[in-house]
Amino acid sequence: MAHFSYDDIDKMHHLYRINLINSCSGYKSANLIGTKCKKGISNVAVFSSVTHLGSNPALLGFFLRPTTVARNTYDNIKETGCYTLNHIHQSILEDAHHTSAKYHKSISEFDTTILEEDYIDDFYAPFVKACPIQLAMSYVEEYPIKVNNTILLIGKIEQLYVPDELLQKDGFIDLSKGEVATINGLDAYAVPNAHRRLDYQRPKPEFAINND
Amino acid sequence: MAHFSYDDIDKMHHLYRINLINSCSGYKSANLIGTKCKKGISNVAVFSSVTHLGSNPALLGFFLRPTTVARNTYDNIKETGCYTLNHIHQSILEDAHHTSAKYHKSISEFDTTILEEDYIDDFYAPFVKACPIQLAMSYVEEYPIKVNNTILLIGKIEQLYVPDELLQKDGFIDLSKGEVATINGLDAYAVPNAHRRLDYQRPKPEFAINND
Repeated sequence: MAHFSYDDIDKMHHLYRINLINSCSGYKSANLIGTKCKKGISNVAVFSSVTHLGSNPALLGFFLRPTTVARNTYDNIKETGCYTLNHIHQSILEDAHHTSAKYHKSISEFDTTILEEDYIDDFYAPFVKACPIQLAMSYVEEYPIKVNNTILLIGKIEQLYVPDELLQKDGFIDLSKGEVATINGLDAYAVPNAHRRLDYQRPKPEFAINND
Repeated sequence: MAHFSYDDIDKMHHLYRINLINSCSGYKSANLIGTKCKKGISNVAVFSSVTHLGSNPALLGFFLRPTTVARNTYDNIKETGCYTLNHIHQSILEDAHHTSAKYHKSISEFDTTILEEDYIDDFYAPFVKACPIQLAMSYVEEYPIKVNNTILLIGKIEQLYVPDELLQKDGFIDLSKGEVATINGLDAYAVPNAHRRLDYQRPKPEFAINND
């Protein structure tokens, strides 16, 4: 068993640390965020921090740093109030991952990869073609995170597009059927090919006496 | 292709909506959060929103609602300043999922499931025995999310325990080797059995001229 204390983590080589800490929280979502500045230059970047915040209203959040590759994404969202989320299918893993390269803001990752812009229902921000699930998002609010200068950006789901074959009768979207990826750490992509759905859980009767 | 607008989502049956919206953001982390109140009653609950916030300092965040099952977790963390994160192994899926049942705060989920408390290095909050990755966390700060009354709670990694066989030379933790689960929606658990690691990405030379 390996054991790392706070001090060990603080003192370790930074490359070892980013691999270790990025992979210690569990599996992460694998999304491409599509944006476009007012001048019309589009941008697409891979994010692994998109998180469910609530269903009613339907809200998703993600974290970004103002000082890294995420700058273009953040600036474009602030300029236009909109962005898209696109699930990474296993057929585009390499190109999706390549969007983590730090290109100048005048260059669109749609030009440097096989990823193709897709415009749906006049939404300003570009979707990524052939992604199994696509969401049109509008900016709601943001929270500067004091402790490490990141930003939590919260958006509202304006439009959601899902292939019929992934959608079950009760609203559940079957990501494994969509061959959607999940991210482990900074650079590992897994594509689960099955899952088990479990029932809604209620307290066991023998402990119900104390249940309110 | 199914298409849902904001209004469609707003008007749909609430059970359909929670399934749809909870599964539309992609795969989620599968963690058990262990806590213990000052009186000594332990608690363990499944969470799917644990997210990487930064490596230096090593910070993770998660979202909770003050008014749901998460109340015990939140109260205990506020009382004691500490909690544990434990990755869900495929052998404990049912019992991990059962911690989503709403038990009275006087009842420990360690008593209602096969999950066993584990105390390591005198940390006050209970770990979950046999979980492949275990983290001791301390409370750092929280952000009330105005738009839907959830809370983002941020913690610092105090201790990290990883089996040697999951740890690669560069610090990467191989979750698939650990048979760690990922969550799709509210109730589906997948256990990826492989992954592909991709290289660190730099801009392609033909686009380098505009790169800063």
